[in-house]
Amino acid sequence: MTLIVQKYGGTSVGSIEKIRNVAKRVLEDYKQGNRMVVVLSAMAGQTDGLIRLAREMCDDPDPRELDVLMATGEQVSVALFAMALKSMGYDARSLLGFQAAIRTDQLYGKARIQEIDATRILKELEKNRIVAVAGFQGLDEKGNITTLGRGGSDTTAVALAAALNADVCEIYTDVNGVYTTDPNICPKARKMDAISYDEMLELASLGAKVLEIRSVEFAKKFNVPIHVRSTFTRERGTMVVAETKDMEKVLVSGVAYNKNEARITVRRVPDRPGTAAQIFEPIFKAGIIVDMIVQNTSEDGSTDLTFTVPKADFQKSLKLVSEVAGQIGAEKVLGDENISKVSIVGVGMRNHAGVAQRMFHILAKENINIIMISTSEIKISCVIEDKYTELAVRVLHEAFELENGPTEDR
Amino acid sequence: MTLIVQKYGGTSVGSIEKIRNVAKRVLEDYKQGNRMVVVLSAMAGQTDGLIRLAREMCDDPDPRELDVLMATGEQVSVALFAMALKSMGYDARSLLGFQAAIRTDQLYGKARIQEIDATRILKELEKNRIVAVAGFQGLDEKGNITTLGRGGSDTTAVALAAALNADVCEIYTDVNGVYTTDPNICPKARKMDAISYDEMLELASLGAKVLEIRSVEFAKKFNVPIHVRSTFTRERGTMVVAETKDMEKVLVSGVAYNKNEARITVRRVPDRPGTAAQIFEPIFKAGIIVDMIVQNTSEDGSTDLTFTVPKADFQKSLKLVSEVAGQIGAEKVLGDENISKVSIVGVGMRNHAGVAQRMFHILAKENINIIMISTSEIKISCVIEDKYTELAVRVLHEAFELENGPTEDR
Repeated sequence: MTLIVQKYGGTSVGSIEKIRNVAKRVLEDYKQGNRMVVVLSAMAGQTDGLIRLAREMCDDPDPRELDVLMATGEQVSVALFAMALKSMGYDARSLLGFQAAIRTDQLYGKARIQEIDATRILKELEKNRIVAVAGFQGLDEKGNITTLGRGGSDTTAVALAAALNADVCEIYTDVNGVYTTDPNICPKARKMDAISYDEMLELASLGAKVLEIRSVEFAKKFNVPIHVRSTFTRERGTMVVAETKDMEKVLVSGVAYNKNEARITVRRVPDRPGTAAQIFEPIFKAGIIVDMIVQNTSEDGSTDLTFTVPKADFQKSLKLVSEVAGQIGAEKVLGDENISKVSIVGVGMRNHAGVAQRMFHILAKENINIIMISTSEIKISCVIEDKYTELAVRVLHEAFELENGPTEDR
Repeated sequence: MTLIVQKYGGTSVGSIEKIRNVAKRVLEDYKQGNRMVVVLSAMAGQTDGLIRLAREMCDDPDPRELDVLMATGEQVSVALFAMALKSMGYDARSLLGFQAAIRTDQLYGKARIQEIDATRILKELEKNRIVAVAGFQGLDEKGNITTLGRGGSDTTAVALAAALNADVCEIYTDVNGVYTTDPNICPKARKMDAISYDEMLELASLGAKVLEIRSVEFAKKFNVPIHVRSTFTRERGTMVVAETKDMEKVLVSGVAYNKNEARITVRRVPDRPGTAAQIFEPIFKAGIIVDMIVQNTSEDGSTDLTFTVPKADFQKSLKLVSEVAGQIGAEKVLGDENISKVSIVGVGMRNHAGVAQRMFHILAKENINIIMISTSEIKISCVIEDKYTELAVRVLHEAFELENGPTEDR
């Protein structure tokens, strides 16, 4: 029997009527003899409402209690969803994080799933029940409620699919798949039929908001096929799968951008062993995720260190870094929020030279100045002034001929 | 060190500002060196909002899922309350039903607490933390969320006080104690300083809404002193305690009424063994609570059976009883929703004769017809036409001179 894990996001369950529609959709697959595990997010708006409530109480709500509060959002969704199925005459059970035995670490608000004991879910499935699991939440080893952070329901779904050895993990969303770039700024963007985990990881981390990055890591690690598709149509979406020979022929698969980062530069850092570690220590301790790091070649015993952090953590990072910069004798700390990162991604880059060169050339032709560069095996990212983001995305999409389907080297 | 369990109801935590005020109030006691366990209800309006949401989904929501949904109300309250304390610089922890190890039976929506493992709470108290426990909820032995029904937070508080061997259980509410009768219909109603468990049980079950009846049963069983008092003043409320010699001198302690019942009469039931059991079986199976039962003396081999049920269960009961009445050959089933029950309560009645007589006489003087009578050791209840309720309460309060303090036999 086929076991399908499905995940529906906040907009898909945004009202009683929508939850009812999701129930009907799930029933279509259930009636065809599939075993169904359904992961739900909080109803659209609920999560923001709860955050507002917490902020009304105090500026900096206690992280443990914030998770207790936030976890109610998904609890409401799964209860209503199971009610809907029951009222339609089908047997269903909602399970919260603790009931589904989703064990996480203790990092409130950003917890990571460590282990899932699937016993209870399997028992419910054996009774032919449809199982609704609250996304985004788990329990740490001390029995405290944790949440996985924004988009965490994707991770819940993929982790469950892995633990249950499901045949597929379907992520339902309000777009019908993964695009070569953001259709809102590039009308020629094209929906892809398939994409590799690695490419999806780069796209997700670079700002394509379709899938939460940790869910893709999980999927890759346990080889869970993900099907990203629309809640509102029956058409096939995009499969996120292990790499195939075919994919390697493609040079560039997609163009991504990210406007949510800010740049921090520490000027004239004394060039001795351990200073970089000293600078980043308070940042890492605060749980802030540093993305790009660039260090210039040393001249006269000092060096410039530049890195990017999420905009939300910019002020905090600036404060932390300024303190440590003083201690180690750096000249000064500069910050810039008006940046964006534009990237091209493709597994084919591994075997082809000159792609970076072509990207720099395309941007230069439009007089777009490159502030930072970072490369990996399958992506090249350039930090530019944020006002050029849309232009850069369009010219790269055009130049690599992404609207025509997979670009092969020519 | 004194251990105090406090419980605050929905109106006491009805807004962010009110939750903050409750936190300040709790801190006053905490700063005096008391160990504090605080039980909270859902914010006023939340429970009704959740019920509306469920009814929007379907007419008859699945009871298990309804409990999952309802339990979010108290979860929100305890999270916000713990945040408030944290933001004021004090250490606090919220615990949900499953975390506080509140084990119940499986009767969704009306579950009964079976056992509390206080280990986790005691561990938190040892760390000098203020512990906030979500009222109204527990976990059955299979790990399903259950709720205790309306007013269940009182029971949570008293059960915790018993499990923790607390010095007192303070129930904070929007009135400042237990009154000799409802001040809204009898301006001469007087706040009592103390009342026995038994009297409180009769008053609660008879419709005085200050304390949930099961909480008083629990308190009696484990001899937990309850202090009913106002959230909004510092004045002493009413102690609910084991009976004292002093109390026995009092003839009548209070006058209660209940408009929430309806009467069902089965006419000409064949008078043979087992018919009463047959009539009530479907009612009990449906979990409907039957209050008064009166059976007239048999004449010509048949008898009339009259009983009362909550108004909310009236239609359902009528249907169930009509079915079984047909099967056993009763003549017909009659129903009446326009009734109310007026009662006088007092432990002193045990040792005094003639109190019932006096009550009947007082009602008769006002031309109030008595439809049903039921007595216990410490109370006398009369079912009357509901339009006479207020008048009956006032004349009984007056005649037993309750406004002057404890009425001794004279």
